[in-house]
Amino acid sequence: MSQTPRIVSSTELSTSEAKWITLKKLTYQDATGKDRLWECAERKTRKSTGIDAIAIFALIRSKTNAFPLSTVVIEQYRPPVDAHIIELPAGLIDEGETPESAAIRELEEETGYKADKVIESSSVIVSDPGMTNANMKLVVLNVTLEDAMEHPEANLEAGEFIVKRVVELHKLHRQLQDYSEKGFVIDARLSHFAAGYTMAERVRAGEFN
Amino acid sequence: MSQTPRIVSSTELSTSEAKWITLKKLTYQDATGKDRLWECAERKTRKSTGIDAIAIFALIRSKTNAFPLSTVVIEQYRPPVDAHIIELPAGLIDEGETPESAAIRELEEETGYKADKVIESSSVIVSDPGMTNANMKLVVLNVTLEDAMEHPEANLEAGEFIVKRVVELHKLHRQLQDYSEKGFVIDARLSHFAAGYTMAERVRAGEFN
Repeated sequence: MSQTPRIVSSTELSTSEAKWITLKKLTYQDATGKDRLWECAERKTRKSTGIDAIAIFALIRSKTNAFPLSTVVIEQYRPPVDAHIIELPAGLIDEGETPESAAIRELEEETGYKADKVIESSSVIVSDPGMTNANMKLVVLNVTLEDAMEHPEANLEAGEFIVKRVVELHKLHRQLQDYSEKGFVIDARLSHFAAGYTMAERVRAGEFN
Repeated sequence: MSQTPRIVSSTELSTSEAKWITLKKLTYQDATGKDRLWECAERKTRKSTGIDAIAIFALIRSKTNAFPLSTVVIEQYRPPVDAHIIELPAGLIDEGETPESAAIRELEEETGYKADKVIESSSVIVSDPGMTNANMKLVVLNVTLEDAMEHPEANLEAGEFIVKRVVELHKLHRQLQDYSEKGFVIDARLSHFAAGYTMAERVRAGEFN
């Protein structure tokens, strides 16, 4: 009963009609004191935390080393790009939640994996600061499994169509390239994480000596 | 004569008045065949390449190993965030340019460093696919210096206020944290690159065994 999602129509939306996003005209003084203009898009949904969203890098480990260090990424159709995107599990922060507790909740909802520890939580970072004020945190979570890899059930909301994929860490960069060759589009943040990981491995292997 | 830029005023902008960005209402059929709505923001500037922008990770090396492997990041005030952002050198692709030649040109304009080789060019990746269709490529460039670190003059356009910072690769993650503590905001893509780099180093050091 599942089919490939597709765009049926696309129309210009007036700012007054938009519910989730708005356009802003900013006047700013530059470093010389001169007034300048800039246009940007903003989400209307930011809560009192001041942070729009979190993304989760889950480090999945076996107590018995039954499998190599792994992580989980998701496949999801994104209408703005009209394609299936490979991205990190992510979500919005609910009122009253910390970014870290939102990360633990979203990881379990989208993938079924239960984190037992926060390894690291980034500062507030911005996804495309020339165009929007959208911001987020990257939370690195630890998931320890007793032995072999498990594939727990996710707990998706109605209308959420998310497929999870477990990837061995040292194969992440290569697997994203494979996904791209198959027509998936890779999220830039995940892609940069993988590029950084691979760069460190290439440096360590002496490739740039 | 230089002062800290600041927002003077921010007003809602009508879609018809906006020159650089527009809002769209998308109707799409989901995986069950049901019609659904989505709002997104789009740049109006995409050229025939189909790619909005490139970001550049420059690997700066010494022929004589006079300094450790390094890279260059930039500081730049971004009105949508009203803060100085630390990000990778980046830019738009001119008509008729390849993404790789745009990367070589932009690196030299923004930092003065001349690349001698493309190490890697990513697939087309998306920065925030739940909100916009904005896309880009990450181009990894090689810059070989004869001996010691050099600090060439950038070739900035009038009105461009960009400060470049050279960072040793193995210190990148830590230095971004330091920047953040000083009030700078880190671009999510650069932040993810650094997080991936550090994760690989921690894995290699046996921290997660």
